[in-house]
Amino acid sequence: MTTWSDKILQLLRRMNNFYLPDSSRTTCFRFELGGEQVGWVPSNVASILSKFPEIFSPPRCGAITLRESFDSYEKRSEAVDDVLQSIRREGCLTVLKGWRDEKYDVMPRFCDTPLMCMERSATSLFGVKRYGVHINGYCRDENGELRMWLGRRSKTKQTYPGKLDNLAAGGLAAGISVKDTLIKECEEEACIPADIAETAHPVSTVSYTYEDKEGVFPESQFVFDLELPREFKPRIGDGEVQDFYLYSMDEVKEVLVSDDFKPNCAMVVLDFLIRHSYIQPDTEPYYQEFVAGLHQTL
Amino acid sequence: MTTWSDKILQLLRRMNNFYLPDSSRTTCFRFELGGEQVGWVPSNVASILSKFPEIFSPPRCGAITLRESFDSYEKRSEAVDDVLQSIRREGCLTVLKGWRDEKYDVMPRFCDTPLMCMERSATSLFGVKRYGVHINGYCRDENGELRMWLGRRSKTKQTYPGKLDNLAAGGLAAGISVKDTLIKECEEEACIPADIAETAHPVSTVSYTYEDKEGVFPESQFVFDLELPREFKPRIGDGEVQDFYLYSMDEVKEVLVSDDFKPNCAMVVLDFLIRHSYIQPDTEPYYQEFVAGLHQTL
Repeated sequence: MTTWSDKILQLLRRMNNFYLPDSSRTTCFRFELGGEQVGWVPSNVASILSKFPEIFSPPRCGAITLRESFDSYEKRSEAVDDVLQSIRREGCLTVLKGWRDEKYDVMPRFCDTPLMCMERSATSLFGVKRYGVHINGYCRDENGELRMWLGRRSKTKQTYPGKLDNLAAGGLAAGISVKDTLIKECEEEACIPADIAETAHPVSTVSYTYEDKEGVFPESQFVFDLELPREFKPRIGDGEVQDFYLYSMDEVKEVLVSDDFKPNCAMVVLDFLIRHSYIQPDTEPYYQEFVAGLHQTL
Repeated sequence: MTTWSDKILQLLRRMNNFYLPDSSRTTCFRFELGGEQVGWVPSNVASILSKFPEIFSPPRCGAITLRESFDSYEKRSEAVDDVLQSIRREGCLTVLKGWRDEKYDVMPRFCDTPLMCMERSATSLFGVKRYGVHINGYCRDENGELRMWLGRRSKTKQTYPGKLDNLAAGGLAAGISVKDTLIKECEEEACIPADIAETAHPVSTVSYTYEDKEGVFPESQFVFDLELPREFKPRIGDGEVQDFYLYSMDEVKEVLVSDDFKPNCAMVVLDFLIRHSYIQPDTEPYYQEFVAGLHQTL
């Protein structure tokens, strides 16, 4: 029988499958800018990029980089965008059908100055790390017990339609701060006014790297806890969410291992369960593995 | 100028120096039991173990293991203990001068059945992972501000004498649960009665691997938060601590980067500062690196 703990462990392994010995990691090219690695290019993508020799240097020592003449944020961003638009028109990479017109910054580490920006839907083709903000929304019932707000993603969402999600979440677009992203997503997705959203507390990050047929996804989410007044109810905002539920922590644990949850949101909830002592080291055999699996970085 | 953030990053690098490219990792032998790795044996220790061919098989494919006849927990524990006693008598490995007469369990993962136990002071010679419990003790002052209790280790402590420490902490000895270790250490080190210690909340783990001349130290600490009543004062118990201080969080941040702190205890406090939002992602450039550095596992 597969236990709750086994299912959580499977989730964490799946979300970190790029670290597994049989992943494509050994056949990926490092994507380097200014001598520093900023991503991983799968070999099929590398073949396509080789058709643009005026933009990309030929792979050397397992690394792909831009021609030296692209020596500024603007030049790099524009050159790569031209390539991506061209690949998109050819229609050979399905992930680009989900073009978002949303730019993500590219840099070796979060604290570094961005070296270029890239269309969101293309980041997995270069294995560029994406950053986001996830908000655990909860309240205390009359007995002081925690209850957690979960959203259900709209059926028309491009990714993970109809799956359970955190109260609010969103990617960090180029040039926007973590706090501003938090306030924007709370407002847009759940109609939470800024004065309430601002009371959210930064508490953690959740980091992982998975790969699938659409590329490599190294991601780090800034995690916030937001205690909502008991009478407050989030409302559907921009239509990215179709419903909100207020679950007891037992219910949350139950749905967490159903296939009903967007996997990275499930990880954010797992981190909440650990920080709020709903999982205990003497009774959860994989306590250490859970914490480790929530914080994998390349 | 070295900033606070830089100093914290240096601490995390030092405590994870076994992962650095120039560490001894490539020249260490894997220590294997039952076909699974349970540690790392530095090459100088491997040379010494080779003088006990009746206990240890000759290294094969970079791995050292026990002779097959040692096929039970008791037999393995006894055989290795005999070797360690013999090495100790010869006096060639200084770390064994700190013999503790305290046994630690040895297993591939925390959730696995222990395969043997080993004298605490010898674990670094085999790079065997050690587990412990650390308790962040804090209270709220009249204004609701958190203040943290820190202990100062006795000047006669074998390791890190006179350094700042968490309220209470201790290693997980063979066969003792996390909770029982917590209660025992709270009582012994800080005279905290069990009914108060039991209110401590498990919240996290802090994991790291460092090496020094005494061997390889992969460690994972189970972290608990314990809110104490405002009027409660910890008292010196078994003499392992010489003093207790109640610091404001600003004072805690300041001493955290002094050389006055036992390094792994500083990591546990850093984890507290992150979970309690005393560090913010928009103002701390290394926020991601801090969280990652607190959760490194092999």
